[in-house]
Amino acid sequence: MTDDTLNIPRTIRWQNGELILLDQRRLPADEIEICCRTVDDVYDAIRTLAIRGAPAIGVAAAFGLLVGLREWEDEPLGREILRRAAHLNSARPTAVNLGWALDRMVRVTRAVGTALYTRLEQEAQAIFDEDVASCAAIGHHGAGLIGEHCRILTHCNAGALATSGWGTALAPIYVVNARGLSPHVFVDETRPLLQGARLTAYELMRSGVACTLITDNMAASVMASGIDLAIVGADRVAANGDVANKIGTLNVAILCHHYGIPFYVACPRSTLDPAAATGAGIQIEHRHADEVTMIAGQRVAPEGAEVWNPAFDVTPNELVTAFITDAGIVTPPYHFT
Amino acid sequence: MTDDTLNIPRTIRWQNGELILLDQRRLPADEIEICCRTVDDVYDAIRTLAIRGAPAIGVAAAFGLLVGLREWEDEPLGREILRRAAHLNSARPTAVNLGWALDRMVRVTRAVGTALYTRLEQEAQAIFDEDVASCAAIGHHGAGLIGEHCRILTHCNAGALATSGWGTALAPIYVVNARGLSPHVFVDETRPLLQGARLTAYELMRSGVACTLITDNMAASVMASGIDLAIVGADRVAANGDVANKIGTLNVAILCHHYGIPFYVACPRSTLDPAAATGAGIQIEHRHADEVTMIAGQRVAPEGAEVWNPAFDVTPNELVTAFITDAGIVTPPYHFT
Repeated sequence: MTDDTLNIPRTIRWQNGELILLDQRRLPADEIEICCRTVDDVYDAIRTLAIRGAPAIGVAAAFGLLVGLREWEDEPLGREILRRAAHLNSARPTAVNLGWALDRMVRVTRAVGTALYTRLEQEAQAIFDEDVASCAAIGHHGAGLIGEHCRILTHCNAGALATSGWGTALAPIYVVNARGLSPHVFVDETRPLLQGARLTAYELMRSGVACTLITDNMAASVMASGIDLAIVGADRVAANGDVANKIGTLNVAILCHHYGIPFYVACPRSTLDPAAATGAGIQIEHRHADEVTMIAGQRVAPEGAEVWNPAFDVTPNELVTAFITDAGIVTPPYHFT
Repeated sequence: MTDDTLNIPRTIRWQNGELILLDQRRLPADEIEICCRTVDDVYDAIRTLAIRGAPAIGVAAAFGLLVGLREWEDEPLGREILRRAAHLNSARPTAVNLGWALDRMVRVTRAVGTALYTRLEQEAQAIFDEDVASCAAIGHHGAGLIGEHCRILTHCNAGALATSGWGTALAPIYVVNARGLSPHVFVDETRPLLQGARLTAYELMRSGVACTLITDNMAASVMASGIDLAIVGADRVAANGDVANKIGTLNVAILCHHYGIPFYVACPRSTLDPAAATGAGIQIEHRHADEVTMIAGQRVAPEGAEVWNPAFDVTPNELVTAFITDAGIVTPPYHFT
């Protein structure tokens, strides 16, 4: 099974010292790439969600440190990398992969004396390649949990568009689809930014995976009519297995618990954050009210309406049936170190 | 407490043989009334949700039978009323109040020999007046369940815009707000048609009730941060207490159950349907895929995406803490006859 046979989109490319990203704000209407030539371009792409998904923003940030610096001498390059790393790390707070990837680049910067740019480029490429391999491993491990004709619910986008490879939550689905097991995916549209409707439906349809789009509040009805399992991604997993992921994940987890449906979280080990003992230690990003009150440039709520808009929620560990990681399936009790 | 002090919108008016409706498709941007002069105008207004909410469509249909018929003789009038009643009853299938109001008008038509138009107008006005009184009774009964500074979650719009009076789910909130108990309402936006964002936030803000708009998938997070109770309306309640209401109500009920939050259903007795033994006997309306894939005229999902779009779901009776009816609070076990 190759990316070509899957026909998944190419989310991130590094080419001649330029970072080229599929602009996810424009999907599914337009498949347009943007080229980041400055670190501010990279910061804005992450901040405005041109690129999103925990693994993908880690990879984009690693390459983003390097844009425009190919001709720089080692010493000023090192100082600039450290300055950029602090800046990019502030673009979004919740996904741990951003800080994790930048930390790897900073460690190389501090350790290497000569040919720094080349070494950093190798490290960013390694982060990319490991992400691709992680996705494939998650796909193969997770595939074992999925039988024939399974009805699977997913939330947000934890697919190829969220990673450098096959995705996290969607990777096992791509694997079983390629094996002819005919999965059917129910896609939560995922308000407010509709990553399910715009991105997950797009990449599943493109890859020939049967799917049905629903609004988030139809999840209980779909489960009542029969769902075999739910798989979601993660932005940060605490040491005790509490999961920060896209807002609405907690709703899905509780509904699965109610109906006795397995609820799986798929993520690479880079998403585990032992520094957060529990979910209470994870910072949740709150975003602008306009994301809720404006859709497609039109106001859908009264002027001046008060809005609460957390981008993520925290699902307690007891609602997670298992984690699907690149190292295998992890079942409770969870102790990530 | 009067409608004027509440400053709630006037949803339905009957004036000189014309049915005047606040066009809810245009809210909150424009407060525009439409005038129904033919039964097709009325049918379209119900079908396209210019008027919606179970009690309101019952009242609108009752008056709608009469538009343009003021000068008709008793005998052809009676035949036309029966023809129209069958037609209007097909406009939407799930809300029982539609058929219930039309049945009342048909019974009068069959029973009355002379001065039929006058008698039918009186009956429609009685349905309207009883709805107003029901809302007030629901408001006063439900207010006893709400303490000071309560944080209340609601879904869809079961307010003044859904009735001829103060609403069903929102009536108790208007009452406690008028008593100075400072409720704070969390409003599910209610995809796909955003009745929460467009209508509930609008009427609560207009009436000076503190409220916060959330996307439907934020409900679990809000509950985790503290909600005292949830109140929703109903489109049809089966004899065993199963509740058909706006899609997403089932999600709210399950989440409330998980967090131990009381889940109340507010409705007039006209919404009870003893003919449906359980929720399985309630027909659920499925609506066009465009409601999910298009927002404000713009496509938000890939062309050709398969969509599942039920307008309602069924919440099983065991998840309902109590019904708030015009006759008082009804607790389990439920046996509506």
